[in-house]
Amino acid sequence: MSWTSIADLIAPSGDAEIALVGAPMEAGSVTPGRCDLAPEIIRKTLRRFSTYDVETGKELALRILDAGDADVKGVMPAEGFAPIEMAVARCTVDHDLTIVLGGNNAVTRPAAHALGVPLEKIGLITLDAHFDLRETDQGPLNGNPIRCLLEDGLPGRNICQIGLAPYANTAKMHRDAEAAGIGVFTIDDVREEGILEIIDEALDRLEACEALMVDFDIDVIDRSQCPGAPGARPGGMPVGMFFDAARYLASHPGVKLVDLTEFDPSLDVSDITALTAGRWVCEVLAGYAARTERR
Amino acid sequence: MSWTSIADLIAPSGDAEIALVGAPMEAGSVTPGRCDLAPEIIRKTLRRFSTYDVETGKELALRILDAGDADVKGVMPAEGFAPIEMAVARCTVDHDLTIVLGGNNAVTRPAAHALGVPLEKIGLITLDAHFDLRETDQGPLNGNPIRCLLEDGLPGRNICQIGLAPYANTAKMHRDAEAAGIGVFTIDDVREEGILEIIDEALDRLEACEALMVDFDIDVIDRSQCPGAPGARPGGMPVGMFFDAARYLASHPGVKLVDLTEFDPSLDVSDITALTAGRWVCEVLAGYAARTERR
Amino acid sequence: MSWTSIADLIAPSGDAEIALVGAPMEAGSVTPGRCDLAPEIIRKTLRRFSTYDVETGKELALRILDAGDADVKGVMPAEGFAPIEMAVARCTVDHDLTIVLGGNNAVTRPAAHALGVPLEKIGLITLDAHFDLRETDQGPLNGNPIRCLLEDGLPGRNICQIGLAPYANTAKMHRDAEAAGIGVFTIDDVREEGILEIIDEALDRLEACEALMVDFDIDVIDRSQCPGAPGARPGGMPVGMFFDAARYLASHPGVKLVDLTEFDPSLDVSDITALTAGRWVCEVLAGYAARTERR
Amino acid sequence: MSWTSIADLIAPSGDAEIALVGAPMEAGSVTPGRCDLAPEIIRKTLRRFSTYDVETGKELALRILDAGDADVKGVMPAEGFAPIEMAVARCTVDHDLTIVLGGNNAVTRPAAHALGVPLEKIGLITLDAHFDLRETDQGPLNGNPIRCLLEDGLPGRNICQIGLAPYANTAKMHRDAEAAGIGVFTIDDVREEGILEIIDEALDRLEACEALMVDFDIDVIDRSQCPGAPGARPGGMPVGMFFDAARYLASHPGVKLVDLTEFDPSLDVSDITALTAGRWVCEVLAGYAARTERR
Amino acid sequence: MSWTSIADLIAPSGDAEIALVGAPMEAGSVTPGRCDLAPEIIRKTLRRFSTYDVETGKELALRILDAGDADVKGVMPAEGFAPIEMAVARCTVDHDLTIVLGGNNAVTRPAAHALGVPLEKIGLITLDAHFDLRETDQGPLNGNPIRCLLEDGLPGRNICQIGLAPYANTAKMHRDAEAAGIGVFTIDDVREEGILEIIDEALDRLEACEALMVDFDIDVIDRSQCPGAPGARPGGMPVGMFFDAARYLASHPGVKLVDLTEFDPSLDVSDITALTAGRWVCEVLAGYAARTERR
Amino acid sequence: MSWTSIADLIAPSGDAEIALVGAPMEAGSVTPGRCDLAPEIIRKTLRRFSTYDVETGKELALRILDAGDADVKGVMPAEGFAPIEMAVARCTVDHDLTIVLGGNNAVTRPAAHALGVPLEKIGLITLDAHFDLRETDQGPLNGNPIRCLLEDGLPGRNICQIGLAPYANTAKMHRDAEAAGIGVFTIDDVREEGILEIIDEALDRLEACEALMVDFDIDVIDRSQCPGAPGARPGGMPVGMFFDAARYLASHPGVKLVDLTEFDPSLDVSDITALTAGRWVCEVLAGYAARTERR
Repeated sequence: MSWTSIADLIAPSGDAEIALVGAPMEAGSVTPGRCDLAPEIIRKTLRRFSTYDVETGKELALRILDAGDADVKGVMPAEGFAPIEMAVARCTVDHDLTIVLGGNNAVTRPAAHALGVPLEKIGLITLDAHFDLRETDQGPLNGNPIRCLLEDGLPGRNICQIGLAPYANTAKMHRDAEAAGIGVFTIDDVREEGILEIIDEALDRLEACEALMVDFDIDVIDRSQCPGAPGARPGGMPVGMFFDAARYLASHPGVKLVDLTEFDPSLDVSDITALTAGRWVCEVLAGYAARTERR
Repeated sequence: MSWTSIADLIAPSGDAEIALVGAPMEAGSVTPGRCDLAPEIIRKTLRRFSTYDVETGKELALRILDAGDADVKGVMPAEGFAPIEMAVARCTVDHDLTIVLGGNNAVTRPAAHALGVPLEKIGLITLDAHFDLRETDQGPLNGNPIRCLLEDGLPGRNICQIGLAPYANTAKMHRDAEAAGIGVFTIDDVREEGILEIIDEALDRLEACEALMVDFDIDVIDRSQCPGAPGARPGGMPVGMFFDAARYLASHPGVKLVDLTEFDPSLDVSDITALTAGRWVCEVLAGYAARTERR
Repeated sequence: MSWTSIADLIAPSGDAEIALVGAPMEAGSVTPGRCDLAPEIIRKTLRRFSTYDVETGKELALRILDAGDADVKGVMPAEGFAPIEMAVARCTVDHDLTIVLGGNNAVTRPAAHALGVPLEKIGLITLDAHFDLRETDQGPLNGNPIRCLLEDGLPGRNICQIGLAPYANTAKMHRDAEAAGIGVFTIDDVREEGILEIIDEALDRLEACEALMVDFDIDVIDRSQCPGAPGARPGGMPVGMFFDAARYLASHPGVKLVDLTEFDPSLDVSDITALTAGRWVCEVLAGYAARTERR
Repeated sequence: MSWTSIADLIAPSGDAEIALVGAPMEAGSVTPGRCDLAPEIIRKTLRRFSTYDVETGKELALRILDAGDADVKGVMPAEGFAPIEMAVARCTVDHDLTIVLGGNNAVTRPAAHALGVPLEKIGLITLDAHFDLRETDQGPLNGNPIRCLLEDGLPGRNICQIGLAPYANTAKMHRDAEAAGIGVFTIDDVREEGILEIIDEALDRLEACEALMVDFDIDVIDRSQCPGAPGARPGGMPVGMFFDAARYLASHPGVKLVDLTEFDPSLDVSDITALTAGRWVCEVLAGYAARTERR
Repeated sequence: MSWTSIADLIAPSGDAEIALVGAPMEAGSVTPGRCDLAPEIIRKTLRRFSTYDVETGKELALRILDAGDADVKGVMPAEGFAPIEMAVARCTVDHDLTIVLGGNNAVTRPAAHALGVPLEKIGLITLDAHFDLRETDQGPLNGNPIRCLLEDGLPGRNICQIGLAPYANTAKMHRDAEAAGIGVFTIDDVREEGILEIIDEALDRLEACEALMVDFDIDVIDRSQCPGAPGARPGGMPVGMFFDAARYLASHPGVKLVDLTEFDPSLDVSDITALTAGRWVCEVLAGYAARTERR
Repeated sequence: MSWTSIADLIAPSGDAEIALVGAPMEAGSVTPGRCDLAPEIIRKTLRRFSTYDVETGKELALRILDAGDADVKGVMPAEGFAPIEMAVARCTVDHDLTIVLGGNNAVTRPAAHALGVPLEKIGLITLDAHFDLRETDQGPLNGNPIRCLLEDGLPGRNICQIGLAPYANTAKMHRDAEAAGIGVFTIDDVREEGILEIIDEALDRLEACEALMVDFDIDVIDRSQCPGAPGARPGGMPVGMFFDAARYLASHPGVKLVDLTEFDPSLDVSDITALTAGRWVCEVLAGYAARTERR
């Protein structure tokens, strides 16, 4: 009764095209929770996914290195910056693609620094209901990684944010994003134009960048399909669009790193969010596997 | 890290364009529950919504009076009629728009009486999976407010009901609705024609009315997106349509009162329904704010 | 305040066009659970559905025999084969349509044998995320009823499988299905072509069959709308399509038996899945009632 | 694998020493809930209890008539008085012992009236954390059955209340109870003197009464052992004492009626309260069976 | 139907014998959670407690000032030290007794500093399953307040720790506690000698201290009676002992401050822990009210 | 902030005094559930227990081999007999004590056979609410391991059963137990005489046996303290007694094997049962460590 699961592709050592690393950061969340539990739950859930995609008729035959978790238990994002940066950098240095399993959204900043490319040459796409541009006067938190990165030197024009939600951001954040040159795409834009069309637009804007990374904050998804994300709201992105985006972006050769953030397993219902996170890994792998075709 | 929330627009006294009042009626529900908890939960949830709508680029800069709750703890709808009518009337008398937070659907009847306009000049739109035309031989309940209002003198032709669900109503209710001249729009009608088109049709039918009110019974929404409504069913209205309807109807200058009913927080899952109710308030406010443009 | 519910159409004896029988098989599930509880919960939930369909304006005036449950408490599918076959055969022998309430998906095999028609003349349509073609070396289980039936002599060309999901099946299963001549329709096929179009295609393929049966495995539905199915996944079929399929297939005069499988009430959330199962019964009845029109 | 369960002793007709009747009253509860669901759940739970008591080595070989439920769906206690009184009276008239399954505590008043004995000759013992002496100006509720009965003519000296809890009653209630001559025993009294000793004291006080009834309000039990009672509190009676009390009181030949009230299955956790209610029935039956020995 | 609740004794200003202040500290917990929600939930739960104690026949007629919450949202214990110290000091300066509602156990350290008495003159009693003597190399956390206080200058001989649990502490912590002169009383000691006897022993040890404070970490209670404390374990203190301890300690005139910590409402079940916290407040008040008698 | 946890004592290979092996049997349960999940959850929970017992002042310095899980996924007890027997035998052959983590109670039979001692020389003590003497006509199940063992040749006089509950067993089981010479101790016996006294009595009866094993079925515990055992009932053994029994029995040099059965993590509440199982492992280890002293 055996089958090959996605978990079977993952090994703690050895050659691999793709690296996977956990960043169980929880402190510094605007709303406290248990995002630190996400990497363990996602890894476990991958046992439930076959390596075979009946839609394309393709078997995922990739090798994935599991680099373990950055040691950030109980520490605030400021202290956790170095451990995450180091853990991720050990992955990016010799893998085509690195998958970072958050943790809260504060992990995106050290992940960007770990790409091994000057910030001004990095392109960042976020799928997120929020700008993540809260003020930084209290240090880095899960609500301000984008502002931190701007302050670190990442040019606003190198950033595109997709899926922003009404009544979940402030006017000032919006003004600041536009002033910085960030590409702003709301959830209504996505619904009206289509997710792949919006992504194409974003990729065009970032064409000059040397390396791309994508932050998938799952709170962009409609809350009924993502009960395990504290910030998800009714009226969010249908989960099918989220999967389409994952596969499409991962198929882009410029994308060197993807992260999945803001999954709090203690809030999940009937494993809906865990299975969504697991399927996201599948779609990222399928996208990567399709890179040769795309070129 | 502060922002302005919708809750910050609400004050217990002072000048305001809009009034908000709770009607925590629970007794008389066909299925007992805790709809009495809804006003408190909704008010609390409003702290989680920003005043800024990233879609329109507009800040909601309204003043809202919170008139508190009608005292209907533990009483049946018949006894609760007067307290609700009085509490609502104190709002409608000097505000352009009154928001009534139920409570079960029995609050719609006293709310209509509190408009300060003869019943024959009131137009009533319901978004509801049910006709609410159960018999009245046991007095007013949450299943018969529309029949009560017909018996009170509200002409059937002044009523439009949107979102009626299969296997959730009887043939007699349907016949009675049509005999009374009520405009009947099923959930399939909504899906096929579009919610805004159906609303336009309803508004046309009610053009002669002097004052309009809208009853938003959240059980019209698909149950997966509205677990906290005892009567909601699989196959209901997508929550996005519900939000569109709220904004569109609230933007109509004739609408003097809206209510939200049948939210039972004790049944909610992952705050999905609470956040839906909160977003509904946002959309009502955004609609009201757009009135000047619409004219 | 009374109304006629679907439960009121069901009697333990007497003349009836339709028979209903429970098959509370649980053992042999790949993931243990409580599918054995489903028949009782579904029967109880039918009290909450009116016999009136506001969409068509028709009253369901059918007589349904409740033949009770097959006695399969605690036994494995191999032992439960005979009790289920007998219990179902007592229904099919003198009713136009038999509704089997599982239990896990292992009930589909004995149900097919109970049709009273040689296997080579039976057409089988499944709505299922899975091929159910796991190996049979450990005997019949909930993951291999289709392979069991192939081995029993049901020709592959008599089978159509609709709604197959990515990462939930193996390449070998897919190859075996195609080698056997099974009609394979993935969930993306359904989304792109439409459920009724796919069903028409399936019915065309099975035109030569003498008797049709349909296995509705509810794990084909999107998990947010079907939390009570252990195998359901994010990205599944919208529940509205599932209802459309039920009505459409039940309206076909060749369909002699339908089953609903893999509902585990112990996993359900806010009765979403129970109400989905109840509405499925309604749609099956409505489809049957429409047969005369269809001809 | 069969065994005889307590449910097997219960039949809807025929000769019986004991009668059982449901009183699913819910309206009029100080805190709304679902006590109306209790009779159905308790009956169902009795299937899980064997008729054999390994402690005494005795088989319960009693016949119990199930007289169904009083029809009080959705009505307030005032309206529900007559239906409950009638339903219970049909039991008491020709059975040695009647078991009333509430419903909220408002059922105790009509049950007393159904004993067929003048109120002044009835002795009433309550196991309850509360005096149930709230004012009656709003009619009968679940918080005032004892005051209602005093006003109806039941002499205070005929009443003993056991298990009263701190911070759950008012000084006025206490004063009124003592002024009326009620025997007052707090939960500390029970812990210090022992439950059987307190019961003996109560029985002595009521020796002159012609018929005794006992109201078992399960909120007297410690909340960790009774999560399904809205009024239960930490620091309540250990559940073992509650069982001892049930058996001991039921063994008294003067006891003609017992009720169990305030069980709300929608609040239950892991069936703890349902199984407590089921065991209570067992202990009542075992007590009754021991009457011949006692004499 | 009204009664006076404990909440009615509390006012945001005015003269009062007792002050109450919230310290919703959550960051720095070994296991992340939502202890920040506790003060709001406890205040709300106090509405459910009457001011009357049926056991003593006494009405609690005290005036309590609610000084609000210290602003520690999202900050680590190091940063939260000053806000908590200040908020608590504003209470202790002119009230006989201050009640601090945590928050995690990190609040105990700033509370001690806020007593307005040199540390060497403060006596500290903890009811806690843990020594709270984790190392301080990562700054103050919820697992090291006692070590912090030792390092701050509180003499070990001024500390007594009651209720320490097996397998929940290390040998080094135990050795350090004894080396520092702390009075160590395990949960078995409590069970064998009695809680009041142990407290008397502790009070004797601390006789020379000028001011006493007591830290009630609710994880000392048995987990079945305290599901809302992340650190509670099976085999803990019966909740009745916890209440006895609260009343007895609060009756001691030397006790100037009590805190309740480690209650995480997001983990609670059936309000058991919320009601335990509410009852704890009642017992503290009752103890205080009895001071005059004690002397 | 590190400490040594019980999990740190466990290694997948190397020398060890004690072996631990999982037997995740679930099929064949009278009530289906997820006992198969228990071994994984218990292992994980052991990370939360320190190796230090503050009560005795002793550090547990044992080496424990984790022999993994017997492969019994999805199979019935008859098929699972051989895999469990082999897996356990590999442990008992060269370890002083083997800890078997079930699974349902069907694992006790193969565990007995794996002791490497003729059945007539084995002594078996059960802590269980049930006799586990259901008929064996349907093969081995979780309700009949003791009858299976009697039929296999284990003499009844070699068996003692402790904690039997009222209304949870049949008269025939009781008669059969006594006829077979089994030592029968009910839960009331335990409460009246004390758990250690009863165990001494049992050990006396089994003195002639060469090897002892103890089956700890956690459903013997009171349900409020053991919500994750499907068969636990209100009125069961206080969890403290269960811990005392574990330590005392494990300290006996004759005890070669202990198992823990009937823990279904899917039913657990607030980790109460998981932490109880974890503490049971601690007590077993502590008992073993005390063997030298005992002798």
